Amino acid sequence: MSDAPPVNRRVLLARRPKGAPVPEDFALEDGPVPEPRDGEALVRTLWLSLDPYMRGRMNDAPSYTPPVALGDVMEGECVGRVEASRAAGLSPGDYVRGRGGWQSWFALPGDKLVRVDPQEAPLSTSLGVLGMPGHTAYAALQTIARPVAGETVVVGSASGAVGAVAGQLAKLAGCRVVGVAGGAEKCRHVEAELGFDACLDRHQPDLAGRLREACAEGVDVYVELVGGDLFWAVLPLLNLHARIPVIGGIAWYNLDRLPEGPDRTPQLMRAVLTRRLRVEGFLVPDHADLAPEFIRTVAPLVRSGRLRFREDVVEGLENAPTALIGMLEGRNFGKLLVQVSPDPTR
Amino acid sequence: MSDAPPVNRRVLLARRPKGAPVPEDFALEDGPVPEPRDGEALVRTLWLSLDPYMRGRMNDAPSYTPPVALGDVMEGECVGRVEASRAAGLSPGDYVRGRGGWQSWFALPGDKLVRVDPQEAPLSTSLGVLGMPGHTAYAALQTIARPVAGETVVVGSASGAVGAVAGQLAKLAGCRVVGVAGGAEKCRHVEAELGFDACLDRHQPDLAGRLREACAEGVDVYVELVGGDLFWAVLPLLNLHARIPVIGGIAWYNLDRLPEGPDRTPQLMRAVLTRRLRVEGFLVPDHADLAPEFIRTVAPLVRSGRLRFREDVVEGLENAPTALIGMLEGRNFGKLLVQVSPDPTR
Repeated sequence: MSDAPPVNRRVLLARRPKGAPVPEDFALEDGPVPEPRDGEALVRTLWLSLDPYMRGRMNDAPSYTPPVALGDVMEGECVGRVEASRAAGLSPGDYVRGRGGWQSWFALPGDKLVRVDPQEAPLSTSLGVLGMPGHTAYAALQTIARPVAGETVVVGSASGAVGAVAGQLAKLAGCRVVGVAGGAEKCRHVEAELGFDACLDRHQPDLAGRLREACAEGVDVYVELVGGDLFWAVLPLLNLHARIPVIGGIAWYNLDRLPEGPDRTPQLMRAVLTRRLRVEGFLVPDHADLAPEFIRTVAPLVRSGRLRFREDVVEGLENAPTALIGMLEGRNFGKLLVQVSPDPTR
Repeated sequence: MSDAPPVNRRVLLARRPKGAPVPEDFALEDGPVPEPRDGEALVRTLWLSLDPYMRGRMNDAPSYTPPVALGDVMEGECVGRVEASRAAGLSPGDYVRGRGGWQSWFALPGDKLVRVDPQEAPLSTSLGVLGMPGHTAYAALQTIARPVAGETVVVGSASGAVGAVAGQLAKLAGCRVVGVAGGAEKCRHVEAELGFDACLDRHQPDLAGRLREACAEGVDVYVELVGGDLFWAVLPLLNLHARIPVIGGIAWYNLDRLPEGPDRTPQLMRAVLTRRLRVEGFLVPDHADLAPEFIRTVAPLVRSGRLRFREDVVEGLENAPTALIGMLEGRNFGKLLVQVSPDPTR
């Protein structure tokens, strides 16, 4: 983009957060652009996806994958443009998606890159409504929640990347869908744009009471993205045989110790037993087999406008840390993306 | 049995327990034998089944069915002999099973009674290994646990009515089965008679450490009957995609308040998410459709001796309250039954 030799800007994990991350937990570093090895392509990052799961990767605790090592580049999924290729089937000018991390250039083997066609949909949607968050929502509904017409579905983080798709798909399945989001503006968007039957502002008092009113026939599906107070507000409303796909628990990610007592686990387990709840963890890589079906189903809905999405774009990789910190506090409004370089297809 | 007119001895719920039930929560009352109405049969109780779920029915709290009302007969399943019948297809001398409650005589409509054949198996087994507890174990394995050969299955209350069947069925499915029971004698029985690979005494120190040693490859199925310390000991050992049918939680039934903190719910939900656990409540009446398959599968195993059972028989209805109290403390050893009248088929 300029005559200066290109620089690879990277965001590293400098320190493991205690509780909520702070900017000092990250470090910005400029270095040389990597050389693609045999079989690899060199990609210039256009878009970086920021997602709540990233908080878990910052902890030195066993999880579904190993954590990011101190001093390593933060992990993340990107869309970019191939600038040089030693990978079969990829050429400069191709657009691809891959787990390039928080950096402005990356090299990955060809089999770790998925080609993305900007003619089909905006490139950034392959990180959101047509990417991992959308696939998560779709597959969690298909495999665990299985909403049936007439049932009531509650979705937290309703204006977020996963919640917005989950709620709209449940609406299309004929359910009554009640969202919960932070603030009046988000709630208006969820009701007016996304078409949920109702959206409750979690910043207003008596969430539990308002939720009970909004769910007069109880709750059959709770799409768990949030945890915390919303979890406890939903629990007493769950109907017999309710399903709770546990996709996230953003209210719990920043805990550096367990909350004060009493220990409410017996209350949860009693509800599980007496109401025969199904509480099941969900992680989208387990459901790669559903990816073609997801795209076949959801892409036409997006193109026709029956399924809406909203992006929250932050300019510049150097702003990624504060954007992630803000997301964990609920300050994003829609799918959070970092624009790392200008997208020539927009 | 004597020349005196027969008396209906009944055990009533006199008071709702606070925490662990005490004898004063029950009342013994003698009254007239009921008259069968049109369509009903009059049954003399031979065997009364005592089961952990009865503790829940004593609370004035919503559960899967309404609680026993104060002053009402305690609920329970019985096997008895028809002594008079106004029900089509039932005649004096027939043996039947039904929810007659804690009383020595009861009258129920014919469609609430299931005929039991003492030629097929001892009458009492229709309350245990071939009755509701066995059906529970069978159906929970079929519908939620789905153990696969080579997997590790942990069963609490391993010498009890449900645990013994669940563990033996998992063994027959080719699993490694680790039981937990209270005391050395029960553990010997579980290993030597029931054929579990190991049985740990929950009264000895460091249950968590011993369980970790006994489950070197982690735990794929935890048949939840117990709750409490065992639950927390199993949780860190659960493998990816482990299944936890929640059938009971005897350690939690007597709580009159939640345990002291911290609140460990986020720890549980984090494990559910990162290890994609399936935690699902199970109640056997939801699975009546599996009853024929259960009997077809398990009755031959019982007859051939490949599936063993042990009964713990208490004589006399007046001893039922202390027997239930003892069971909630783990003092029974095998399927707990009250012999209400002599069984003429034994």
